[in-house]
Amino acid sequence: MNDFTPTERTKVRRLPQRGSYDRAVVYDILDEGFVCQVGFVAEGRPVVIPTAYGRDGDQLFLHGARASRMLKALRDGAEVCVTVTLVDGLVLARSAFHHSINYRSVVVFGRARVVEAEEEKARALLAFTEHVVPGRWAEVREPTRQELDATLVLALPLAEASAKVRTGPPVDDEEDYALAVWAGVLPLRVSVGEAVPDPRLPEGVGMSDCLARFDPASRRARPA
Amino acid sequence: MNDFTPTERTKVRRLPQRGSYDRAVVYDILDEGFVCQVGFVAEGRPVVIPTAYGRDGDQLFLHGARASRMLKALRDGAEVCVTVTLVDGLVLARSAFHHSINYRSVVVFGRARVVEAEEEKARALLAFTEHVVPGRWAEVREPTRQELDATLVLALPLAEASAKVRTGPPVDDEEDYALAVWAGVLPLRVSVGEAVPDPRLPEGVGMSDCLARFDPASRRARPA
Repeated sequence: MNDFTPTERTKVRRLPQRGSYDRAVVYDILDEGFVCQVGFVAEGRPVVIPTAYGRDGDQLFLHGARASRMLKALRDGAEVCVTVTLVDGLVLARSAFHHSINYRSVVVFGRARVVEAEEEKARALLAFTEHVVPGRWAEVREPTRQELDATLVLALPLAEASAKVRTGPPVDDEEDYALAVWAGVLPLRVSVGEAVPDPRLPEGVGMSDCLARFDPASRRARPA
Repeated sequence: MNDFTPTERTKVRRLPQRGSYDRAVVYDILDEGFVCQVGFVAEGRPVVIPTAYGRDGDQLFLHGARASRMLKALRDGAEVCVTVTLVDGLVLARSAFHHSINYRSVVVFGRARVVEAEEEKARALLAFTEHVVPGRWAEVREPTRQELDATLVLALPLAEASAKVRTGPPVDDEEDYALAVWAGVLPLRVSVGEAVPDPRLPEGVGMSDCLARFDPASRRARPA
């Protein structure tokens, strides 16, 4: 798996030690996020829209209804910038100025392509479902031809991308380390609450296996 | 507190019942997020950058080093689009097609202004710190004049904004409700792990009050 080549747009300039062009690092972050932010230009002005996504190898899939403004803007091959950001902790320094956040983020640049072939479209829908809860695809009703037709799927090649990662304790000014102020990191993570069954769930339908073993922080695309 | 007037850009067109122009709804989402996504146009192409932020009344503050690419692009009053997205749960339907995510998101459009006055800059740094952990500002060393000078602060008026919110169970096709597939919502929330003290923390410095009572989901800007 070859790594990314930094480009004018993906090269991390501010604090370059936080940058990574390692494909495994980038893909781990993409696989852990639930929502990406899609940036595009509409009438010369920036628009950013949060949306679900899925990854299939070196492609990122986006989808939505055919009428959506974002997909209309992107379907003609317009430039797009997609980011995924995971917040890992609050970095509490001794000074207000040095407070920070531990995070992992990915930025992807490129042009999306409309997925037309029914087979690839079905693979994209599998990627969306498995991205959220691995193993879910095998439990649910597969998409019908009508559902596939109603969905616009875009594929963005994972060719121009980079990650930016901050970890570790605060970095304070040398003279501040003597202050009697608690400093350190408050880790944050995504945790799962108790499942809320659908009010219309028929009696006797038990919790699914893939949900019982679900861990939001270690989901990997596991195509059936 | 008057609500937002939907504009060409903020009007929620796809699933309009999910849209809200209620200022309190928008501000609650902004106050709960840790990182926003800043979209701008650079050389005609979209760029999205995750960054920390703070809110002070009807203004959103962004900040960074003077050399940062994003702040350079925005300081001249370029159009910006800022989003904050909170993921509240996974919506597990009986069909792959109807899987969804419960979320709350905000989009803000506008042009940022450089904050020059030292007093307003100090207020912005207070807003950043209190946004992350309410009560923290009073515990830490305040910024020096040099630190204020090194920081570029931008203020974005909260004038053109809207929220989009999905809640509740899956919406399945009528005939799918009979399927023996577990369906419902898996709630997600941000939880706090055990605090990691800075390796250089002097002995005897106890946990701070504001961290001991910290709850990531109910932080409100509480200026000192």
